[in-house]
Amino acid sequence: MKFNIALLAGDGIGPEVINEAVKVSDAIAKKFNHEITWTPALTGACAIDAVGVPYPDETHEICMKADAVLFGAIGHPKYDNDPSAPVRPEQGLLLMRKKLGLFANVRPTFTFPSLIDNSPLKRERIEGTDLVFLRELTGGIYFGEKGRKDGGETAFDNCVYTRAEVQRLAKKGFELAMTRSKKLCCVDKANVLETSRLWRETVQAMEKDYPEVTVSYEFVDAVAMRLVQWPNSYDVLITENLFGDILTDEASVISGSMGLMPSASVGEHTSLYEPIHGSYPQATGLNIANPLATILSAAMMFEDAFGLKDEAEAIRAVVNKSLEQGIVTEDLAPKGTKAYKTSEVGDWLVANL
Amino acid sequence: MKFNIALLAGDGIGPEVINEAVKVSDAIAKKFNHEITWTPALTGACAIDAVGVPYPDETHEICMKADAVLFGAIGHPKYDNDPSAPVRPEQGLLLMRKKLGLFANVRPTFTFPSLIDNSPLKRERIEGTDLVFLRELTGGIYFGEKGRKDGGETAFDNCVYTRAEVQRLAKKGFELAMTRSKKLCCVDKANVLETSRLWRETVQAMEKDYPEVTVSYEFVDAVAMRLVQWPNSYDVLITENLFGDILTDEASVISGSMGLMPSASVGEHTSLYEPIHGSYPQATGLNIANPLATILSAAMMFEDAFGLKDEAEAIRAVVNKSLEQGIVTEDLAPKGTKAYKTSEVGDWLVANL
Ligand SMILES: CC(C)[C@H](C(=O)O)[C@@H](O)C(=O)O
Ligand SMILES: CC(C)[C@H](C(=O)O)[C@@H](O)C(=O)O
Repeated sequence: MKFNIALLAGDGIGPEVINEAVKVSDAIAKKFNHEITWTPALTGACAIDAVGVPYPDETHEICMKADAVLFGAIGHPKYDNDPSAPVRPEQGLLLMRKKLGLFANVRPTFTFPSLIDNSPLKRERIEGTDLVFLRELTGGIYFGEKGRKDGGETAFDNCVYTRAEVQRLAKKGFELAMTRSKKLCCVDKANVLETSRLWRETVQAMEKDYPEVTVSYEFVDAVAMRLVQWPNSYDVLITENLFGDILTDEASVISGSMGLMPSASVGEHTSLYEPIHGSYPQATGLNIANPLATILSAAMMFEDAFGLKDEAEAIRAVVNKSLEQGIVTEDLAPKGTKAYKTSEVGDWLVANL
Repeated sequence: MKFNIALLAGDGIGPEVINEAVKVSDAIAKKFNHEITWTPALTGACAIDAVGVPYPDETHEICMKADAVLFGAIGHPKYDNDPSAPVRPEQGLLLMRKKLGLFANVRPTFTFPSLIDNSPLKRERIEGTDLVFLRELTGGIYFGEKGRKDGGETAFDNCVYTRAEVQRLAKKGFELAMTRSKKLCCVDKANVLETSRLWRETVQAMEKDYPEVTVSYEFVDAVAMRLVQWPNSYDVLITENLFGDILTDEASVISGSMGLMPSASVGEHTSLYEPIHGSYPQATGLNIANPLATILSAAMMFEDAFGLKDEAEAIRAVVNKSLEQGIVTEDLAPKGTKAYKTSEVGDWLVANL
């Protein structure tokens, strides 16, 4: 098969981890007789520096034409403490999500037996955890009207959802639940928010179409607790944009394998695969960042975007092997053992595929 | 001294835990020669049942006249899966906060040496944790305009903050930081939300008035992670209403002492003290609920509302003693050891004051 993949390396460690994912993907393509054309494009702070906007039209064109998008990370600390900067890298991310129609962010949290002791949680709390969040990604308070009034003294952000938006996301949740343990948790704040009440009533109305799925409804604050207490009690969770932002990040650290968690954003026009970690500016250029989350994101891409399960499994298998053999970057290397460089991990994976 | 305390027992286990807090408070009053008048009033589901509204005017009058309010918990499961019920207990809570002007919710998370192994986190992660959240409680998306459009197909919730609201809360944060380790963390989502940018710029402008306080600014998703990873790296955190709802609940479970965490809500007209746990409907009437969070909330009331530090310390000391001696309810009793009833714990505390 032939694929055209848009390559958005982004900022910070983005280019370094993307580089290893490309190496591994190319090796897989060679092994399974596929042909990948990578089309690099600018996004984030580096796009602002180069052309003045964080998600240039040219980048959008490239993504629209591609069979899938592989994304690194964006963000630069020079923008963080300047909340009123007129142009910020994150705007590019949001614009990209909106223009590509990436309405569902798929964020698994699972554990690696060999890494379980890295978890801040006790072993018996985290063992067996294997959950997936479906976060709505193109609606809610992120995209509602926002601004100032009263000469700047009052700020507002409007959170808006339509029933159709909820249905679209929930449908993916029910379908995913059907392929797993048939448990779906709808996370909302229906005791306070009208948008949450719309979420809850919409999901409730869909239950009859999926009689095998057991649906629970939990408040976002309760889920924030139970994720720490009994993460393995969850399977598929669906939620709105902002709750998803907070809870998926919380979920990502409980496994102790934050640097390994992949994600997908799927939508109307294409789908995008990216590690959940950020641009990690302090590590930029040091060749120390962990590339495995990006490599596992590429595996998700092979499986979900191209329907190539064997290729995905081959990547996952070699990643597991590298973990078992301790071919890991410094974030995972136990004190006193050798840490491998970003590029060395990629090389080892290619050599052992 | 003479105090008039409004007593809002609420729903579920509320009356049972409040009962023990009253016992202990009365014993303290007797010992230190104070006179407490308790004025009970209805709130929550029980108020809906009795008079049709969750926060009756009569209750509000009683709170306004009182020197402080001691609150149990509200909520009943019959309302949870009916997000469109016209009257819900939580509305009473929100109305009460608004009408009493309780703009700052003070939520400490600390550890008890004897309970540290109850934490879902590993000992080395949680040891030494002693943080306080100041959550804004009368603004933001909780109180902005909300409703439906397009014949019910679109829902919206507006999040609004004024600079004055942020200043009022932040001032308490800076002041609290000055009495502690002089570290303040402002939690926002300034990379996406305009209200968060107002928060951040307002707090930044206040920094010069508190030159000794070191202020950090962190995104809410990053805090959701670090709370699990390194909770003891935080001291005082300030945040808006919805973020505070999620993060304070997350913080409450990391200590492993969720059933023991007290809270205060302070404001313009009076202050209110309540356990952070909910109404725990399944345990209602069984005399098994842990009363310590409510009793420790009463201790906060003695100290903060009445300026009686010795009385507060006496309560905390006897609570610590009960924990050390294992005079605890079933949630804290190790498997195979005797669990005490709610009322037995209260009796023991009174006898050992
Ligand atoms: C960078 C930021 C705008 C973004 C978000 O809030 O969606 C990030 O936190 C994420 O989760 O991808
Ligand atoms: C019951 C609910 C309305 C309330 C809130 O969201 O504020 C509760 O979760 C809390 O934190 O006190």
